Amino acid sequence: MSECIDDLIDAFLCLPSVGPRSAQRMAYHLLLGKRKKGLNLADCLTRAMTKVQHCQSCNTFSSESMCDLCSSKVRNKAQLCIVEMPLDRLAIEKTGAFSGQYFVLMGHLSPIDGIGPEQLAIDKLFARCKDVAFDEVIFALNPSMEGEATIHYLKEVLKPLNICFSQLARGVPMGGELEFLDSSTIGRALSKRSLMSEDDIL
Amino acid sequence: MSECIDDLIDAFLCLPSVGPRSAQRMAYHLLLGKRKKGLNLADCLTRAMTKVQHCQSCNTFSSESMCDLCSSKVRNKAQLCIVEMPLDRLAIEKTGAFSGQYFVLMGHLSPIDGIGPEQLAIDKLFARCKDVAFDEVIFALNPSMEGEATIHYLKEVLKPLNICFSQLARGVPMGGELEFLDSSTIGRALSKRSLMSEDDIL
Repeated sequence: MSECIDDLIDAFLCLPSVGPRSAQRMAYHLLLGKRKKGLNLADCLTRAMTKVQHCQSCNTFSSESMCDLCSSKVRNKAQLCIVEMPLDRLAIEKTGAFSGQYFVLMGHLSPIDGIGPEQLAIDKLFARCKDVAFDEVIFALNPSMEGEATIHYLKEVLKPLNICFSQLARGVPMGGELEFLDSSTIGRALSKRSLMSEDDIL
Repeated sequence: MSECIDDLIDAFLCLPSVGPRSAQRMAYHLLLGKRKKGLNLADCLTRAMTKVQHCQSCNTFSSESMCDLCSSKVRNKAQLCIVEMPLDRLAIEKTGAFSGQYFVLMGHLSPIDGIGPEQLAIDKLFARCKDVAFDEVIFALNPSMEGEATIHYLKEVLKPLNICFSQLARGVPMGGELEFLDSSTIGRALSKRSLMSEDDIL
């Protein structure tokens, strides 16, 4: 086969969940009448790979040195919400229930994948917490083993700063059916059950 | 989110079987520590999209105007094997059972997808068959409804040239288990059964 095509098929293997067969399909799909879109993808890749940096304040991806949320003057400066990934930040923004600051770890501790405190920019987080003196730090990491372990580590690191810590409530998700929920979720929701007053009933 | 990243996520949607979630995963995967590979992908895409053309003789993808197989002087010039895609040509080459010429249609007739005779370069095929006067044209299209319809159409087009036509044998595949084969395959293998001489038994 042509060398260009072989190189392209090899290059597609860098994408997650793309194996040799999908890589071949991708290459032929673009070569067969989708050349403009292929060139556009190349262009977008080059721009993103060279321009996107980490926001110096919240560590999320941004094409500026400071992201739009961190540059905003109207947000609450007293609360910091720590999330794993930029998309988690987006998910929290969509709720409209939080108007404070963020810090994006870009993952969770995972020694087996070589992700330790340095990879998660924890120094940057510590420096920011020290500078800003937040009233509250909210841990909004994924409710997984790795998320819990990361929260535990972060609490140890930030403890000397004497900040109030909180984390997302654990319980049954809205719209979920008890029948299909795992028992650790239901067990935790039971042990953390909330007392109801008449006002609470909706 | 940053505009560069949004553009990159949109651009990934041009790949087959990639939806918004996979596109996001791809973009973040490359941004998080795979930037060199991302730039390499951009580079390979640009080269392939601009350099790869159709071989003027067999219509396959090639970075030269004539592909390596068509330029070869040692191949049999009397037989032409028609396949749907470049990978089918590769599959036939791997068998080592054919040393003739190829023609790659780049698909099969599929009016519902807007693929008619013009998209399959059938004029080019006709011109080549007229010029070269092959002894035999072998149809090695996929054994599907569309493949069969395309073979039927091609036979009508090439009939005036008085060439001998053949097609791949249909039957039970090597290593297949009868139990798991569909009944049209077994039915066809029964009706096309071959008489055995003592020499045939292996």
